[in-house]
Amino acid sequence: MAKQNRPEQQQSQAPDALNCEVRLVDLNIVRKVQPEILPMPEAQRMAEFFGVLADPNRLRLLSALANQELCVCDLAAGLKMGDSAVSHQLRILRAMRLVKYRKEGRNVYYSLADGHVINLYREVVDHLQETGSSSMGVE
Amino acid sequence: MAKQNRPEQQQSQAPDALNCEVRLVDLNIVRKVQPEILPMPEAQRMAEFFGVLADPNRLRLLSALANQELCVCDLAAGLKMGDSAVSHQLRILRAMRLVKYRKEGRNVYYSLADGHVINLYREVVDHLQETGSSSMGVE
Repeated sequence: MAKQNRPEQQQSQAPDALNCEVRLVDLNIVRKVQPEILPMPEAQRMAEFFGVLADPNRLRLLSALANQELCVCDLAAGLKMGDSAVSHQLRILRAMRLVKYRKEGRNVYYSLADGHVINLYREVVDHLQETGSSSMGVE
Repeated sequence: MAKQNRPEQQQSQAPDALNCEVRLVDLNIVRKVQPEILPMPEAQRMAEFFGVLADPNRLRLLSALANQELCVCDLAAGLKMGDSAVSHQLRILRAMRLVKYRKEGRNVYYSLADGHVINLYREVVDHLQETGSSSMGVE
């Protein structure tokens, strides 16, 4: 895959050892890859989604829900957080459709919104475990 | 699953309509769920990981690599970003082991670090599409 006989090239020096030593842009590859690049509005929306997950308390909350649905009272007690703090985080997670709820009698039960959320969570656990983390608490 | 005949209960009022109307903590459930909750150090590490993904330019960069490896020159040209900006983001993505690289001749080729990264990316694309987004550019 060394770059030789390329149809269109631009050339300049790059100083970083982890960059290409010589700047050769293959416009055929660039044209092929451009339609696959996330448009900026979608990238911003996805970044916002990840921003919601970039909070340890919200992640602990999702981990509690990874294997079962829980009512707010049990969730707060399990996490040793106040009800209002848990409610606040659940509101943010609901807005990003990461969790859903159902009412039953006097209780409100929360669970992960869909299979993607649990898959997402497990992919990250696996990735971090393989790159040197300890147990992440998912069965 | 209405809470009745629970062995150990605490009780107080909760004002939010999406909270339980009556605060009933089931200590059996709490004891069962606590070992499954992410310990804070892991939650912080995972939050840091998601923080790296909470950036639209880094996500666009990952989307470019989702279907093929690319050298830094082609990546920068495809994203219409400067080489040094791309290098900076690649350094952050490398630190979180989201991308890996290999040198061949004078070029440095980047690709996604492992299958978890592409699975993670696709789970989020699917989640956002199902919750009302347009095309996210993954084949």
